Amino acid sequence: MNDMFYPGRVDFDDICPLDYRYYKLVPTAFAALSPYVSEAAHVRYQLLVEKSAAQTLADFGLCGEEIADSICKACDNVTAEDVYRLESRTHHNIAALVRSIQHLAPEPARPYVHLFLTSSDVMDTAMALRLRDLTRHVVLPVLCALERTLIEQSRHAAELVQIGRTHGQHAVPITYGFALASYVSRLGGRIAVISRAASELRGKASGAVGAYNAHCMASAAAGWDPEDFESAILGRLGLRPADHSTQIVQPEFMTDLVYAVLSCFSVLANLADDVRHLTRSEIAELRTIAPAGEVGSSTMPHKVNPFRFETVKSLWKSFAPRMVTSLMDQISEHQRDLTNSASSRFAIELFAAFVIAAGLMQQALGGLEPDALQMRNNLSASRASIASEAIYVSLAMRGVPDAHERVRTAAAEARRNGTDIFDALRGADESAALVADLFSDEARWDSAAYTGIAIRKTRQVCDAWERQLSGLES
Amino acid sequence: MNDMFYPGRVDFDDICPLDYRYYKLVPTAFAALSPYVSEAAHVRYQLLVEKSAAQTLADFGLCGEEIADSICKACDNVTAEDVYRLESRTHHNIAALVRSIQHLAPEPARPYVHLFLTSSDVMDTAMALRLRDLTRHVVLPVLCALERTLIEQSRHAAELVQIGRTHGQHAVPITYGFALASYVSRLGGRIAVISRAASELRGKASGAVGAYNAHCMASAAAGWDPEDFESAILGRLGLRPADHSTQIVQPEFMTDLVYAVLSCFSVLANLADDVRHLTRSEIAELRTIAPAGEVGSSTMPHKVNPFRFETVKSLWKSFAPRMVTSLMDQISEHQRDLTNSASSRFAIELFAAFVIAAGLMQQALGGLEPDALQMRNNLSASRASIASEAIYVSLAMRGVPDAHERVRTAAAEARRNGTDIFDALRGADESAALVADLFSDEARWDSAAYTGIAIRKTRQVCDAWERQLSGLES
Amino acid sequence: MNDMFYPGRVDFDDICPLDYRYYKLVPTAFAALSPYVSEAAHVRYQLLVEKSAAQTLADFGLCGEEIADSICKACDNVTAEDVYRLESRTHHNIAALVRSIQHLAPEPARPYVHLFLTSSDVMDTAMALRLRDLTRHVVLPVLCALERTLIEQSRHAAELVQIGRTHGQHAVPITYGFALASYVSRLGGRIAVISRAASELRGKASGAVGAYNAHCMASAAAGWDPEDFESAILGRLGLRPADHSTQIVQPEFMTDLVYAVLSCFSVLANLADDVRHLTRSEIAELRTIAPAGEVGSSTMPHKVNPFRFETVKSLWKSFAPRMVTSLMDQISEHQRDLTNSASSRFAIELFAAFVIAAGLMQQALGGLEPDALQMRNNLSASRASIASEAIYVSLAMRGVPDAHERVRTAAAEARRNGTDIFDALRGADESAALVADLFSDEARWDSAAYTGIAIRKTRQVCDAWERQLSGLES
Amino acid sequence: MNDMFYPGRVDFDDICPLDYRYYKLVPTAFAALSPYVSEAAHVRYQLLVEKSAAQTLADFGLCGEEIADSICKACDNVTAEDVYRLESRTHHNIAALVRSIQHLAPEPARPYVHLFLTSSDVMDTAMALRLRDLTRHVVLPVLCALERTLIEQSRHAAELVQIGRTHGQHAVPITYGFALASYVSRLGGRIAVISRAASELRGKASGAVGAYNAHCMASAAAGWDPEDFESAILGRLGLRPADHSTQIVQPEFMTDLVYAVLSCFSVLANLADDVRHLTRSEIAELRTIAPAGEVGSSTMPHKVNPFRFETVKSLWKSFAPRMVTSLMDQISEHQRDLTNSASSRFAIELFAAFVIAAGLMQQALGGLEPDALQMRNNLSASRASIASEAIYVSLAMRGVPDAHERVRTAAAEARRNGTDIFDALRGADESAALVADLFSDEARWDSAAYTGIAIRKTRQVCDAWERQLSGLES
Repeated sequence: MNDMFYPGRVDFDDICPLDYRYYKLVPTAFAALSPYVSEAAHVRYQLLVEKSAAQTLADFGLCGEEIADSICKACDNVTAEDVYRLESRTHHNIAALVRSIQHLAPEPARPYVHLFLTSSDVMDTAMALRLRDLTRHVVLPVLCALERTLIEQSRHAAELVQIGRTHGQHAVPITYGFALASYVSRLGGRIAVISRAASELRGKASGAVGAYNAHCMASAAAGWDPEDFESAILGRLGLRPADHSTQIVQPEFMTDLVYAVLSCFSVLANLADDVRHLTRSEIAELRTIAPAGEVGSSTMPHKVNPFRFETVKSLWKSFAPRMVTSLMDQISEHQRDLTNSASSRFAIELFAAFVIAAGLMQQALGGLEPDALQMRNNLSASRASIASEAIYVSLAMRGVPDAHERVRTAAAEARRNGTDIFDALRGADESAALVADLFSDEARWDSAAYTGIAIRKTRQVCDAWERQLSGLES
Repeated sequence: MNDMFYPGRVDFDDICPLDYRYYKLVPTAFAALSPYVSEAAHVRYQLLVEKSAAQTLADFGLCGEEIADSICKACDNVTAEDVYRLESRTHHNIAALVRSIQHLAPEPARPYVHLFLTSSDVMDTAMALRLRDLTRHVVLPVLCALERTLIEQSRHAAELVQIGRTHGQHAVPITYGFALASYVSRLGGRIAVISRAASELRGKASGAVGAYNAHCMASAAAGWDPEDFESAILGRLGLRPADHSTQIVQPEFMTDLVYAVLSCFSVLANLADDVRHLTRSEIAELRTIAPAGEVGSSTMPHKVNPFRFETVKSLWKSFAPRMVTSLMDQISEHQRDLTNSASSRFAIELFAAFVIAAGLMQQALGGLEPDALQMRNNLSASRASIASEAIYVSLAMRGVPDAHERVRTAAAEARRNGTDIFDALRGADESAALVADLFSDEARWDSAAYTGIAIRKTRQVCDAWERQLSGLES
Repeated sequence: MNDMFYPGRVDFDDICPLDYRYYKLVPTAFAALSPYVSEAAHVRYQLLVEKSAAQTLADFGLCGEEIADSICKACDNVTAEDVYRLESRTHHNIAALVRSIQHLAPEPARPYVHLFLTSSDVMDTAMALRLRDLTRHVVLPVLCALERTLIEQSRHAAELVQIGRTHGQHAVPITYGFALASYVSRLGGRIAVISRAASELRGKASGAVGAYNAHCMASAAAGWDPEDFESAILGRLGLRPADHSTQIVQPEFMTDLVYAVLSCFSVLANLADDVRHLTRSEIAELRTIAPAGEVGSSTMPHKVNPFRFETVKSLWKSFAPRMVTSLMDQISEHQRDLTNSASSRFAIELFAAFVIAAGLMQQALGGLEPDALQMRNNLSASRASIASEAIYVSLAMRGVPDAHERVRTAAAEARRNGTDIFDALRGADESAALVADLFSDEARWDSAAYTGIAIRKTRQVCDAWERQLSGLES
Repeated sequence: MNDMFYPGRVDFDDICPLDYRYYKLVPTAFAALSPYVSEAAHVRYQLLVEKSAAQTLADFGLCGEEIADSICKACDNVTAEDVYRLESRTHHNIAALVRSIQHLAPEPARPYVHLFLTSSDVMDTAMALRLRDLTRHVVLPVLCALERTLIEQSRHAAELVQIGRTHGQHAVPITYGFALASYVSRLGGRIAVISRAASELRGKASGAVGAYNAHCMASAAAGWDPEDFESAILGRLGLRPADHSTQIVQPEFMTDLVYAVLSCFSVLANLADDVRHLTRSEIAELRTIAPAGEVGSSTMPHKVNPFRFETVKSLWKSFAPRMVTSLMDQISEHQRDLTNSASSRFAIELFAAFVIAAGLMQQALGGLEPDALQMRNNLSASRASIASEAIYVSLAMRGVPDAHERVRTAAAEARRNGTDIFDALRGADESAALVADLFSDEARWDSAAYTGIAIRKTRQVCDAWERQLSGLES
């Protein structure tokens, strides 16, 4: 996914930046997302459920095959616009959908459209279906591609030494590959969680209050089972019911997916922050490469800014708080109130925004270059203080009881006097002096080699997730 | 504002329900909002700022009047689409805006376009401007109309006795007008807060880091003052600067308005909840009147649902958590990071959703009927227990030290025995018996008259806010 | 868990209602929670990690057994107060912990305390450990007990007919047991999710930046593997590492548990709301039984309020938004910033509040009585309109193409004229008249029997979760 | 306020870090906050309201002076523990409060305790009162002291040149004083907003449903006015009623204060972030000075970390999302539901946490030193690219139509070739060459002088807020 712009599709009357900017303006985003996230897709998925219901009626001998076929054919010809036109009279979206189908179906078929179903049977099942498809066909592939990019960049920089940082301060060295491997592992973990949550989505066809009341009008006499009927409708679509529903599917299946995606979004936001800070003018361990023609500032012509990473973080800020809407939407009075009518419509936005953010991240990583020289320079600046952990551990293993405090005091003294810790320790006592000598000589101790098992770990993590990805993608 | 549907304008590829449903589908919403909240409007407001800057350059003798005029004329001809077309090359929206203007301006005028300004000067000022206009021309009028409706309904029901409810339990009586007057007062208060926050919005024209660096290249020699220059640009637009800015306007002015609107949104949500509960089948003190043709359920033909009130609550659930995004967007590193790039674009959505919710509420209140008989019935059902407060106070004023506990015990006993509190008290002692007699006789004590000063208070509140509204609207 | 009060333990200087009210005031809550959620427990768990580290040093031959034993013994004698006393000097909690141990350990053991570890090794591992224990020993048992209560009440009311409600309006009938079975299923599902998330918690012992740098000072020569060393420390505590860590454990394991608990909290809040509404004076299908002496209102002696259910909902309102803090805490710059220092301390509050809410719910359900007569009355009031779904389906199955619209029109007409739907249909046409007759006669159609498979489903759900519980608890 | 620790007061059974760590551990925090935020204070403020009510009864001739005096005396002797002891029986906190007073009052006085009042009259009024006092006596003084510190440091560094930063990249120069002045202005603005919100808090004494029902039992005959009675009770406490209340005070007054504080908290968090980044090892323009004995890391003895700034940010992360709880608590069904019972108890925590954060910030700023040399070094590193804005403006003012694009291209070329922008421009054309010469010579152009009006603005802002502070504090 890249962010080439194509304004031709944009409706400049739009309010929402997803619509006018991050999606309809960007052909790759539009092509990937519109089959699932557009309102047209929303209606199309509802029609899939109505088709499945009609076919199931025929399967159960409740109507003839030709009736079911004619309903399916009608469904294929209903458009979102048809439905909206009727809704202006019914003020009820599924009633409008049903009548749109009936309008195109032959008269004998009409009573069988939507028979036994309540609106939520169609809406909740359609939502589960499109989220499952969107996750499988877009979200997971985009994330897996991003994971492969991270693996590749992580492997490539497995030995590229970088100072580790905690509290924004130099700590002890790692490699840049090791830093990236953290994201390989975290993103990998989230991919698994998202995949599981999507596969747990459920539909329903249990009627107005979940008790299959209408079904029983017919089934009692005819000897078929309402739960079998529901399973058949859903089974045709590759879905299952939960073990209990009311008017609606239990909200938790959906909330789990929203959470899975948002917790993954945070991982992207963290990576974006790390890159932003590593491109700071003074740190400069990463460089963003501006394509020819790209402008950084309308008044400062020299600026090159990590704006794609900023956008990823900014999208996260827009969407993370919406988790609370999902938690609120778990609450519905009795067999259902409808205070999730609008909020459940907005829910799809998260998935679109997340795919867009992941696509931006993918593209932005492609325009990112580590600067090995600068990494080495930054590391060198802290050579002496980095040694302090190594010195403390050496002293401790020589049995010095207050090893940490001694080194801390020496480091503070060195800072105060503008000298280095080796001198400060030499002035202390015999064992300290010995150790100081051991570390002060670059020939014997090289801070750039003090990277623990960073290199090995980087490769381990990349290998492990590469295997996992192959599993997921097969 | 009503919700007649007009699908002709809808783009069914849209993702966001604001775009495809609550706004472009509803002509009144579209007409009211699009001049302020659309992306086209966004660009148009930025052009207003560029025009003001050009005119100010001329005012300060930094370019000729004809130069300024030609820039203004160019601005009038730039469209959002032009800007987006160029942005596909610059990857910078304001650079694209500037070049779009320059493209339509004569060559000698080009260097004066956007001179001294940074992108945020244009973006933040344009945002302040459009929010100020949107608030003045749409938000406040819509709220004032709603307030007038509430005042009217409150007055009308000033004497309509209703049982007061706390914890969902019958408490003591009020009037329905008094219950509505609570919303007259709360909404009135929020109107004042929104109005004040909108009038406090600020712009800026202080350049890249807020220190007027570029201005000083020119002003130092020429003897004009950069702050005067900024004030002039903003003054032409009816805005002021804050007393300090960085690359951006201090975020708090905007956050204040977001909060003002959200806290008003909660008031609407509360009213929506109250109505929803008062329309419950068992309570039924309010009735929603379905227009002919409106369908309540796709399987239960008898249903009439308070769905507009549900939608108001649901929109609130979608938007309330976004307050946290605004709080996050107050934080910007140093003179500014750009992690509010996307989130500040989403900010406009709240204002659109709020106007839509207020419009829905207005329309829904118009289709609401109090049922006086049912109110009387519900009240009667608790006649005896309502008396308990009056009895307790009477006993207390007669000097009974444990008056409350006595009445509580009697009420519990009555509940246990299925009798009424008067009998239970009569069985107690002399003074209780006396008081019980006083209250048990409808001729002497009428629970429907135990409404305190509810009627007077209702009228007081309506009068007060009617006066305030006149002030606001003049 | 019940809410008997014991003020003796309360510190009235406390700010937090968890401390002074919901926990220290309630002996059962205090006894259950304090071993895990108190600050004393926090320190105790950190000491467990230091003990495991010392023992592992001995296991790996890095120190003698007697050294490890003396460290463990010292750990057993360190108190939270000791640590805080030292922290007033070190301004670093783990440095204070380490020195507190060293102070009580013999001199030769001192260098081995905390060797190779960074503070987060101890803190994150201790946090995982105490959350795992808290979940296993308190959260899950409390939830399983609640689930058993719901199962019991659901079974008991399996055949108790109740009107189903959507939009707060009467829909079609279910049974009260069926309504409860929804919570059996939803709570059951959440118990599984919480259990899984707790079992996925991870620790770490990989040092300052996750690369085992300090370990390698020693291991390189001595031939042991730093990852084995980490696994050994964690293994002694029943934990595992993730496949990559930085200074800290990947935050997602913890975020998953926070989410699992919050999504379960929403289920409790939903149940609380349902009960609150069913106890409303007009609905009155459920009654809360006030213990003798309980006061409902300080001025209205007759009030009996569902306050425990209100408290559950209110606790949910306090904690649901904190999910956003967890999402923010997933972001930590580079190998770690410390902007989660305070927020991670607050994280434990959620678990305490949730256990308290679940305990309250358990207790409150015990004081709840369904009123079968009132349920029957409420149902009867809607007898005619309930029939509308059955009539529509009957007509549709007789091949009437616009069956739904006919019945809807008839229902609206009946509402308008104050008659009933049967009369309205009789006035329509032949087939409608036929059907109307079928349903208008109570002998042939009983709305209380129109409950679909509600009874069977109730038992199915109860059976299924009873089996699952047995599995979980064994 | 400083953070010296005093573990003696800590209850290590506490769960909440506010209680065991940030407050009871820190004597200055405890002394400042406990009179307002503790549970003991909570009860004390409720007793103040009961006293005022008793005195008002006497003022209105509804009881004798000696009765009122005896109630006041009883109130003075009631403790929080007394109330909690009784609450274990009443399960109602205000009923327990009332009976605690009655228990200590002579029998004839007992019926007059709490007469006409409902619990919320006492609770909401007490909450308004303690928040008003807390704001006046603690929040505002702490913020004003912080503002003075910022003013002082801003003035002191008014001329200390620093590179301005946007997107984390070097932009154009400012001064460090100017950067701080941004916080002087923003914090100043928030102080004004907090002060206003606190002065708008309201109380109530309008009874069970806000209609003064009980009052009217007595007033009707006796000729006093229930609203006068309420005003008198509140007036004695320095409060006013709103123009309408239900059982509770309109929530918006409180929500406004919560918002005011949170929006100020974000300003502190922003400052904390800026400092954190300016202390990064590579940037190092600010240094945190560790007191002797302070430990930065338990394994890396050299570390000095900006942990107090991290704690401020972390507290913000814990509390910012709680704004959503406040928005939810605006919604209360009918005259009131009680789903804010627990959440309103938690509300006080924000104020405590905010005061603690502001105190930490104050203390941390005192330990912060700007490093002038490092600021100069960082600035120098970007000398050439900083010039690009100045060059572009110079070219534009010489009439070059595509000045910005030319300089941008030259800057990109310079970056690519590792040369500087002056050379790149010299290779362009005549006018560019001329300008390049103008700027390449340090004698004629000094990037450190390109600070616009940063110095003047710094002083302006400091002067303005110093005046405002004097106004506020007088």
